[in-house]
Amino acid sequence: MADDVAVPAVAIGPAPDPLLEDAVRRGGARLSPFESADALVWTAGTIGFPDPLPPNIRWVQLDSAGVEQWFDAKLITPDTQIMWTSAAGAFAATVAEHALTLLLAGVRALPEHMEARTWRQHDFYSKVGTLRGATVAMVGAGGIGRALIPMLAALGADVIAVNRSGSPVPGAIETLPTTRLNEVWPRADHFVIGAPATSATHHLVSGAELAQMKSTSWVINVARGPLIDTDALVHALRNGSIGGAGLDVTDPEPLPDGHPLWELPNVIITPHDSNPPSVRPPAFADHVALNVTRFVAGERLTALIDPVVGY
Amino acid sequence: MADDVAVPAVAIGPAPDPLLEDAVRRGGARLSPFESADALVWTAGTIGFPDPLPPNIRWVQLDSAGVEQWFDAKLITPDTQIMWTSAAGAFAATVAEHALTLLLAGVRALPEHMEARTWRQHDFYSKVGTLRGATVAMVGAGGIGRALIPMLAALGADVIAVNRSGSPVPGAIETLPTTRLNEVWPRADHFVIGAPATSATHHLVSGAELAQMKSTSWVINVARGPLIDTDALVHALRNGSIGGAGLDVTDPEPLPDGHPLWELPNVIITPHDSNPPSVRPPAFADHVALNVTRFVAGERLTALIDPVVGY
Repeated sequence: MADDVAVPAVAIGPAPDPLLEDAVRRGGARLSPFESADALVWTAGTIGFPDPLPPNIRWVQLDSAGVEQWFDAKLITPDTQIMWTSAAGAFAATVAEHALTLLLAGVRALPEHMEARTWRQHDFYSKVGTLRGATVAMVGAGGIGRALIPMLAALGADVIAVNRSGSPVPGAIETLPTTRLNEVWPRADHFVIGAPATSATHHLVSGAELAQMKSTSWVINVARGPLIDTDALVHALRNGSIGGAGLDVTDPEPLPDGHPLWELPNVIITPHDSNPPSVRPPAFADHVALNVTRFVAGERLTALIDPVVGY
Repeated sequence: MADDVAVPAVAIGPAPDPLLEDAVRRGGARLSPFESADALVWTAGTIGFPDPLPPNIRWVQLDSAGVEQWFDAKLITPDTQIMWTSAAGAFAATVAEHALTLLLAGVRALPEHMEARTWRQHDFYSKVGTLRGATVAMVGAGGIGRALIPMLAALGADVIAVNRSGSPVPGAIETLPTTRLNEVWPRADHFVIGAPATSATHHLVSGAELAQMKSTSWVINVARGPLIDTDALVHALRNGSIGGAGLDVTDPEPLPDGHPLWELPNVIITPHDSNPPSVRPPAFADHVALNVTRFVAGERLTALIDPVVGY
């Protein structure tokens, strides 16, 4: 079969990668050597990157979310004539899956189940909850929140999203602006913290917020440790004023040996591994397939880097 | 507001129940005393059931899935002139949620995380998996399987369903008849057992099946213990030939103290509590709301009991 020259050609470098080759095909483009490609998917850092690029390259897809080094190395410059995209957002789904795992494990009382060495059915009956009909507050509704909402919806939970603008998040029953954040603590059954870490979000969840939650509420943090006041959380967990906490991030982090969080029975700690290297390749491949689809269709690419702003 | 006599009237007995009253309203009917009702939602057993029923009652909704006692008591007879419905299927969603919880907990290595008392991020990186892109075999695709499929789909997993007829299950990428069950063991990444317990399904998962699974595969049983050969499972778990097992049911059941399953690190046991009394009322209310909707619309009711066949 002859190449269809109307179909954009994408090169993968510096090394071949079967997952990404498949992603390029899924996206509707054809694979091509670097010299004759319209686009380049680059799976390494700045060292060894072809500079200058041949003029046929109109788009470069990078494989990390943070791209400071590309600006530092002056490979991306404010006057660049090509489109650069990062991997920002590519890993939201795996972090959302992790958040859902922690939340379900909490709601279904898995920590206590795993401690048990005897069949105590009637004792557990009152401890097993459900997300069906529950209201989950998604505090910070960026990529992770948007990935989590359909997962929660499939389980029959209602989501209240909180974001800066309050502009409606698809799938949420209600979206509140951060100025109304204080309303969610008494209203929701469970809380997933996914906000960026800024001076404004430091200790977003502290004693006053924890005190308004239900005794069955689980708080899940998959964002950044300092969003939660650790001492206040330990206090709430110890006195049972909330149901429990699922923490992929902690403050301090790494959590030091002997910290009280390690021993509390209603805490699940995962060491910031919600997006492990082992699951990144297929997630990045999906991201590439999506962007190839958009490139082929002439649509706006996702995770487009602003060469002037620097990210 | 005057009663609209065109809107069917539903009674709830023997005691008032706010959740069910809300369900009747959600379903588009109005509440009514027993004497003037078109339908009756009955939340108790056979004792105290009004016999004979007044002739205005055309439908009775019972609150259990098994209804043998109603036939034994001759309250449902082959020549009954009214429609009887059970709660069959009402609790599928909570069991499916439980199955998903066990599967996610396994895939995300929660048992080992919960044992940890120190931050071992790099050690865990290789142990955290994902359902995204994974293939899950749903062995037995009745109510639980049908409830589970959209949950798995939201997580990006592909489902291969296995049922008796092989007639396509909505949402599954492929449905195999039980005659081709042997194909799934090497193909799928994980397995959810949801088949009925019959002589044909006894030890459906035994040594030969376990030997074909991947070393990362989790096997979830939310159906009946004897579907899995416990000794073969313990052997596979001990030698690491599968990833782990999430068991809401066991054989023997209750699992006796000291049984090796209690001590294996890659097993999550919940004592047949996937459908605890604490979550039944809202699930039953949803079932009632659905059936009231159908009753109002003159559509076929769900979980209709066949008065001749006996279930």
